[in-house]
Amino acid sequence: MIAVDWGTSSFRAWRLAADGAVLDAREAPRGILFVKDGKFAETLRTEIGDWLAAGERHVVMSGMIGSRQGWVEAPYLPCPAGLPDLAMALVRVPFSDADLRLVPGLTCTDAAGVPEVMRGEETQVASTLTEGASVICLPGSHSKWVRARAGRIIDFATCFAGEMFAALRSATILGRMMTDAPIEFAPFDRGVARSGEPGHLLHHLFGVRTLGLMGRLADADSAAYLSGLLIGHEIRAAMPRDTEVDLIGTDALCTLYARAIAACDGRVGAVNAGSAQRGLAMIGERVRWD
Amino acid sequence: MIAVDWGTSSFRAWRLAADGAVLDAREAPRGILFVKDGKFAETLRTEIGDWLAAGERHVVMSGMIGSRQGWVEAPYLPCPAGLPDLAMALVRVPFSDADLRLVPGLTCTDAAGVPEVMRGEETQVASTLTEGASVICLPGSHSKWVRARAGRIIDFATCFAGEMFAALRSATILGRMMTDAPIEFAPFDRGVARSGEPGHLLHHLFGVRTLGLMGRLADADSAAYLSGLLIGHEIRAAMPRDTEVDLIGTDALCTLYARAIAACDGRVGAVNAGSAQRGLAMIGERVRWD
Repeated sequence: MIAVDWGTSSFRAWRLAADGAVLDAREAPRGILFVKDGKFAETLRTEIGDWLAAGERHVVMSGMIGSRQGWVEAPYLPCPAGLPDLAMALVRVPFSDADLRLVPGLTCTDAAGVPEVMRGEETQVASTLTEGASVICLPGSHSKWVRARAGRIIDFATCFAGEMFAALRSATILGRMMTDAPIEFAPFDRGVARSGEPGHLLHHLFGVRTLGLMGRLADADSAAYLSGLLIGHEIRAAMPRDTEVDLIGTDALCTLYARAIAACDGRVGAVNAGSAQRGLAMIGERVRWD
Repeated sequence: MIAVDWGTSSFRAWRLAADGAVLDAREAPRGILFVKDGKFAETLRTEIGDWLAAGERHVVMSGMIGSRQGWVEAPYLPCPAGLPDLAMALVRVPFSDADLRLVPGLTCTDAAGVPEVMRGEETQVASTLTEGASVICLPGSHSKWVRARAGRIIDFATCFAGEMFAALRSATILGRMMTDAPIEFAPFDRGVARSGEPGHLLHHLFGVRTLGLMGRLADADSAAYLSGLLIGHEIRAAMPRDTEVDLIGTDALCTLYARAIAACDGRVGAVNAGSAQRGLAMIGERVRWD
């Protein structure tokens, strides 16, 4: 089968053997944002047409390709949901070259009845589900904190953390002093520590400015400090106290979140035990293909 | 005397009689951001040269004109500080046409030793100081929450609320659906109510997106909802529980803050009892002019 993780900014595909082994892999900057005029079929043929020509007939896709802005909209499946639920709810995409199915996103509501959504992360998380209870954090523009039990995702909460960081950096006075220096651990840790001090996020944010003004935070350190401050606030607010947290994400973000979780008296469990490729393979195993 | 409130974006001046009565007033979009090459003296002559020519010799100025980016830097005066302290700490500006003095900004440190600064607000607040205790909120890009007692500002905390709203609106996915519709009370109140529900700011922010996605928040309402959400979080975190809050700011912001304070079980005291013009006049009365 072919597994495709087709997100907002990138396209990734794997050709998989019957036992799930990766035979070949592709990656391209062809996220749905960069596909013009709905030419998704053409883009798919461009990227993996040779695999289809070689006889692959079964394709499972996850990510924003199933959103309203994607190829076909796959409605959100309500939680709780696990691998069998996702496999049952796949949405067919009309495509002459193969039997093409979309993994739906998931939805739940928070304590006040406000909806939550994810699309793409459910596939990564699904590959790690066990009979026990777990908490999985997927850091990113819109970080997800997922609670799972008995093989199913129970519910989840989104934090507007990564995109907040980018907006504060690009569009406020806090970003004016920031440099392109890489995120160093020392100022990052200082920001995480600050997030635990008296006060609140909106107050702590102004401190990024005053510490710089008073010569107590170097320009080159201020982006790392802000990152630590936001991630620290996110973790203190979103992390359950009584269980370890598994992480799924880029190495850079997982490293930062692991440091911050430890600094906030949390425990990190598995890092990147789950992946889109693995989840797509596991969902694909459960599909009754035509 | 002449009172000048010279901020980042605007310039305001008043010609005052000995009893503080306003004889004349000027306003121009000549904030320090728009004064090129340090031509502050020239700008002042352009705006109020006729008052100087008519014999006014005493000028007191407050605001960002006393910052590092202004005419002369007036160092921050540490709290606690009241009218007499501000009047004692005025900084002279070399200017051939008049005896020109700058009101210093104020500084304090929060519970964790992180510095706080204000510049301009101290003059507005100073005009309202009484022997009793009070809390004054000055909403804006960087809202100030000031505690005063026995005629002095004891300390204050800044909330990065207004600029956060602007950045989220202009530079994130939350702003994409927003319209230029004026802020209506109903969706604003809904955002304030949301700020008191379980969860935290970073989680509630993502709800702006999901409520829109699910058709439960109209595009035209989403800016007002976001404004209420941020102001609600600010008030719940920054407002002391045991005292009423005086407000100083634009009519539009004071109206919104007063609604939100009431919704958060707070009490609003005086609105716009203080002003830069009044504070400058009161400080000017205490100056020993040459």
